[in-house]
Amino acid sequence: MGLSRKKIDEYFMRRAISLAFRGTGRTSPNPMVGCVVVRDGRVLAEGFHSCCGEDHAERAALGRIADAAGTDLYVNLEPCSHFGRTPPCAPLIVERGVSRVVVGMTDPDERVRGRGLDILRAAGVAVEAGVLGEECRWINRGFIRRVTLGRPWVTVKGAVSLDGGMALESGESRWITGPDARTAAHRLRSEHDAVLVGAGTVAADDPELTVRHTCGESPMRIVLDSRLSISPGAKLSAPGTTVFVSEDAPRERKTAAEAAGMDVVSVPSGPSGLSVLHVLSALGARGVNSLLVEGGPSVIASFFREGLVDGVALFLSPRIMGRNRPFSGPLAFSSMDQTIRITGTSVKAVGDDFLLEGVPECSPAL
Amino acid sequence: MGLSRKKIDEYFMRRAISLAFRGTGRTSPNPMVGCVVVRDGRVLAEGFHSCCGEDHAERAALGRIADAAGTDLYVNLEPCSHFGRTPPCAPLIVERGVSRVVVGMTDPDERVRGRGLDILRAAGVAVEAGVLGEECRWINRGFIRRVTLGRPWVTVKGAVSLDGGMALESGESRWITGPDARTAAHRLRSEHDAVLVGAGTVAADDPELTVRHTCGESPMRIVLDSRLSISPGAKLSAPGTTVFVSEDAPRERKTAAEAAGMDVVSVPSGPSGLSVLHVLSALGARGVNSLLVEGGPSVIASFFREGLVDGVALFLSPRIMGRNRPFSGPLAFSSMDQTIRITGTSVKAVGDDFLLEGVPECSPAL
Repeated sequence: MGLSRKKIDEYFMRRAISLAFRGTGRTSPNPMVGCVVVRDGRVLAEGFHSCCGEDHAERAALGRIADAAGTDLYVNLEPCSHFGRTPPCAPLIVERGVSRVVVGMTDPDERVRGRGLDILRAAGVAVEAGVLGEECRWINRGFIRRVTLGRPWVTVKGAVSLDGGMALESGESRWITGPDARTAAHRLRSEHDAVLVGAGTVAADDPELTVRHTCGESPMRIVLDSRLSISPGAKLSAPGTTVFVSEDAPRERKTAAEAAGMDVVSVPSGPSGLSVLHVLSALGARGVNSLLVEGGPSVIASFFREGLVDGVALFLSPRIMGRNRPFSGPLAFSSMDQTIRITGTSVKAVGDDFLLEGVPECSPAL
Repeated sequence: MGLSRKKIDEYFMRRAISLAFRGTGRTSPNPMVGCVVVRDGRVLAEGFHSCCGEDHAERAALGRIADAAGTDLYVNLEPCSHFGRTPPCAPLIVERGVSRVVVGMTDPDERVRGRGLDILRAAGVAVEAGVLGEECRWINRGFIRRVTLGRPWVTVKGAVSLDGGMALESGESRWITGPDARTAAHRLRSEHDAVLVGAGTVAADDPELTVRHTCGESPMRIVLDSRLSISPGAKLSAPGTTVFVSEDAPRERKTAAEAAGMDVVSVPSGPSGLSVLHVLSALGARGVNSLLVEGGPSVIASFFREGLVDGVALFLSPRIMGRNRPFSGPLAFSSMDQTIRITGTSVKAVGDDFLLEGVPECSPAL
């Protein structure tokens, strides 16, 4: 008795997922996609989407072989049906004579949404959809958020002590965690399209928000700065930084920031600062699939308050700080059932520290 | 090539340690000890110290066989040389003709401290000491603390949110963690000789401090209550509770508490409450090897402030509480290098929660 078809399909889908990860941090606004072409249980060709503007995974894989007739093609996302920067993949798959296509998930992009599979089926190609669907949705959670909700997947990152502190009362925060955790934090940055802090963090730490200590692309850099108070000497006062300001921020500061090369975006404010929803919509419109919030307690609290956090990545330092600036900042709840539960939590050791990751209950299903 | 003698010795010592654990929670003020008698690589007899007043492990094991001549005897702690509640083990081992004794650690009790091994060596018994020494010291860390420093091993236990809260600002704390964590907390109680809370916890939660939800002995129950303000209706206002009070606590309350069957002990006070060191010395004098501190933030802070914490057991709930009563209470440090590092930290999942365990840097080496 050999392996069941289900097991075989999962095996090759897992390989497609591994290939998809090769595009980490480079494909946005596109999804990460990997593709495996198989005949008689043997891999003939592999491909992945390496970068926005480059070939889609299916085209990359099929381009490596002269004869694709009668093959099974595995891809973690439904082949596209529309002309984007490149021609559509579904007709190509038909043309090359593939006999069976196995996909992880349908494409939530309204220009596709099943039309790719329809093209395949209409041409007589066998289609199997939903193989390792949960994993496939998870790896493209950012892409799914943006095309379905118009905003990026939002991960809140913090380095905290066991008593929840991001800094001592004095403001001292260097270093709560060790070098391995800091390297892992830079890796997190490289996996996100954009990284965000508040004006307070800029004033206190003058961060660069670039990827160092590890390889990978530096993300887009975002500052929430209602009054546009960022110092012209700050490292982030430079081209490549997008700063969100309130609609009544002083005009002359906007002019100066734009002159320094920053992208200045006005958004409405509420009683507790800039509207996070408007910030996220603007980022979604700019093609940002994933956002890492590295801001201090007030910024973190504003994202939680609006229910706009999809993931937490907390580096826990096994350290007791005593009186501190807690990372949940001004959040407050009057009963235990209002507190924010993190689900699907995992903890792993990172040097002497621990990384706790999970998804807040408020995050909509994928 | 067979196993090295070192591997063989470690193998049987590991078995002796497993046997020792059968006495968990029952041997104090004695240590936990297990013993294996081996001839030609085969186990002839096993024994462990089951309860204070019962046979020591070596006597229990040797009592099971008629002929112990020429055997190897493994025991995690040096055989005793003095008459206590039972006759000494070292002379018994000699008398039974054991040819080799392998011990994990020497007995730190000043009545023994190598004298047991001396008796064996003087009688021509081969002695190997220090096999799995670190593990052997760890399992009897409470006994070692008491006989060397005159105080119990102190573990601080707490249930905290990711932002370090033991309760909401309102005082609500039920339930931060889930049922599995609560069961594990009761198991922790059963593994300690005594459990301690402050008057604030008694007033807020009216705890019983008994072992429920799991099997095991209930520990001695301790309350720190400077002014002896515990309500006569509290569950802990009963025989079996030891209450520590300041030297100037009202005499009539002491009389009433004693009339209710409580053991009332006066200790000196400092600016931030009762002297923890005096409390611990009094517990050491009462034969308490291990103490679990379950008290609220003020009590926990007082133990950390005096550098008298040997272990932490924090149940981390993957939950953000917002403004809260942080478990580190009134502790405060002015720079990062003064904060309390927890070393040798491990984290394990307990239901939906996590248990983080480790040893503060301030804890003296074993």
